[in-house]
Amino acid sequence: MFKKLREKTIESIGEFSLIDHIKSWLPRAKTPVVAGIGDDAAVFSISPSCYQLLTIDTIVEDIDFKKNQAAPEEIGRKALAINLSDIAAMGGVPKLAVVSLTLPKKTSIQFVKGFYRGMRGLANQFHVSIVGGDLSGGAKISSSVALLGESEKRHTVFRKGAKSGDWVGVTGRLGGSILGKHLNFTPRVREGAFLARQGVSSMIDISDGLWQDLGHLTTESGFSFMIEPSQIPVSSAALKEARGNRDKALLHALYDGEDFELLFTVPKKRFLSLKRAWRRRFSVPLTIIGKVVSGRQAEARAFSKRLGFQHFPPKNRRVPASPAGRRPLAD
Amino acid sequence: MFKKLREKTIESIGEFSLIDHIKSWLPRAKTPVVAGIGDDAAVFSISPSCYQLLTIDTIVEDIDFKKNQAAPEEIGRKALAINLSDIAAMGGVPKLAVVSLTLPKKTSIQFVKGFYRGMRGLANQFHVSIVGGDLSGGAKISSSVALLGESEKRHTVFRKGAKSGDWVGVTGRLGGSILGKHLNFTPRVREGAFLARQGVSSMIDISDGLWQDLGHLTTESGFSFMIEPSQIPVSSAALKEARGNRDKALLHALYDGEDFELLFTVPKKRFLSLKRAWRRRFSVPLTIIGKVVSGRQAEARAFSKRLGFQHFPPKNRRVPASPAGRRPLAD
Repeated sequence: MFKKLREKTIESIGEFSLIDHIKSWLPRAKTPVVAGIGDDAAVFSISPSCYQLLTIDTIVEDIDFKKNQAAPEEIGRKALAINLSDIAAMGGVPKLAVVSLTLPKKTSIQFVKGFYRGMRGLANQFHVSIVGGDLSGGAKISSSVALLGESEKRHTVFRKGAKSGDWVGVTGRLGGSILGKHLNFTPRVREGAFLARQGVSSMIDISDGLWQDLGHLTTESGFSFMIEPSQIPVSSAALKEARGNRDKALLHALYDGEDFELLFTVPKKRFLSLKRAWRRRFSVPLTIIGKVVSGRQAEARAFSKRLGFQHFPPKNRRVPASPAGRRPLAD
Repeated sequence: MFKKLREKTIESIGEFSLIDHIKSWLPRAKTPVVAGIGDDAAVFSISPSCYQLLTIDTIVEDIDFKKNQAAPEEIGRKALAINLSDIAAMGGVPKLAVVSLTLPKKTSIQFVKGFYRGMRGLANQFHVSIVGGDLSGGAKISSSVALLGESEKRHTVFRKGAKSGDWVGVTGRLGGSILGKHLNFTPRVREGAFLARQGVSSMIDISDGLWQDLGHLTTESGFSFMIEPSQIPVSSAALKEARGNRDKALLHALYDGEDFELLFTVPKKRFLSLKRAWRRRFSVPLTIIGKVVSGRQAEARAFSKRLGFQHFPPKNRRVPASPAGRRPLAD
């Protein structure tokens, strides 16, 4: 016997399926919205040449951070950084943030001061103004930040847009974020705006892990990917987590959440000039890891078919090593 | 011996004092912001004639609602409604919302569907589009909504702006919100926009209780208030909570949180035409409860001085009957 949907728990249907349900429960936007639920940020027109971008993201104690393993500064910084990463993935420039902070009554002023100090440092770095928010009481610490950004219409990039033959690229190195990067990563805001101006065809920030986020690009574009595992830039943290075993480190690079690097597709003919300009500007690695292939497959199956990674767990495998408990709806 | 600030808890210094500290910890906004932390929403210019308004507000299980005492529809509705009320208090029109929802793993799909059904109903009523959000895991249900709105510059109202001699008015009836209104109140969006066009000089939504929110207007304007307690419109719920005792019911009207009515000041000469136009348009009561008097007192002391309410508890009295655990930073 199958349970009726209404009797199921969110755990049993999975969060991505839940997001699809939520989409179906909500009516189409009244204000003309170019991208809504399902992209990294909501996108809507504010002038003939500009879009405005709006995103919200939440961090929760014991899911996204442990209070005894993270400094208050790191927690405040992360609450903003994950939103900056969403604006970066659209090629946008972040502008204004409002901050909701839920705190247990016994929280020290020192914690709150540290939280805002960490957030302020990152806000200053990216010229973001914190313009409001609210405070609530609660049993655990959590913080939601909503971030408003802007982008030039002709240089705005969506999850959808990849074409057959495009190359698949990634910034930075992947995996092992839980060893520290998930708290102190630099959101790829300048890199995202640069990639957008260079004509990348689709983009997403890697928050759920490379494998899952590749799937999100696929879903939107209706194409599939051929990935060359040997090209995936594995981080030293992934190697450390895998105790030097390169195969295991590759699994971390594929499945760990919260890398907050950018994953994008780019027309082959644009890549050479992009790469040259990138090298002049950034020290972060930029790596081509595969290409977009035609075929309306629902999932990126290239790994197992072409490269014999049959031991890879299925797409919805739970990765205990991943710090990612969050699942984006539109970020 | 006094404890150093950093060693104190947020409970010991109080939430309004904490908000003042947070203000001092954050730098001035880079983007020109007309109103920021300390008003109902952040206000910034997007065109020669229009402001954009941004607000965020959070509801937390067991603080703002009890799961076994509220339908999922009511919880979803409230998460949006409290933000609509903030935009209303500026005289603005709400436009787009993003929704962050934190849920325990065992939450039923039925709950989530009900939550969005309730939110959607209210969004439809006020022509608001839900354009994105995110889902998180957590031990308790909570939801943060960020809402973007617009206002005409010449018809935008702030907490600051009251002048000596202005009358003090309030929409609806006050007190006893915990008996149901805190879940099913109608945000005064149309009323707020109307009052703004009629030239009210300052406005706030009553979320912390009439007495405290009067204090917020005072703080911003540097004036004080003379209130006529017999004129305060006491709700039937407040009377019910007070078991028919009118004095006790008045205390509920003064101190209970989450009325979500509008409290405003208006130049005396504008009030007659405002009142006539109001009656043609709205069935909600509109009541003048006092006036603004000069004198740069930090708090609204008129009650005790003029009217002998010496038995009133101090401003920071905790009201166990109040469902309000939230404290606004800029909403």
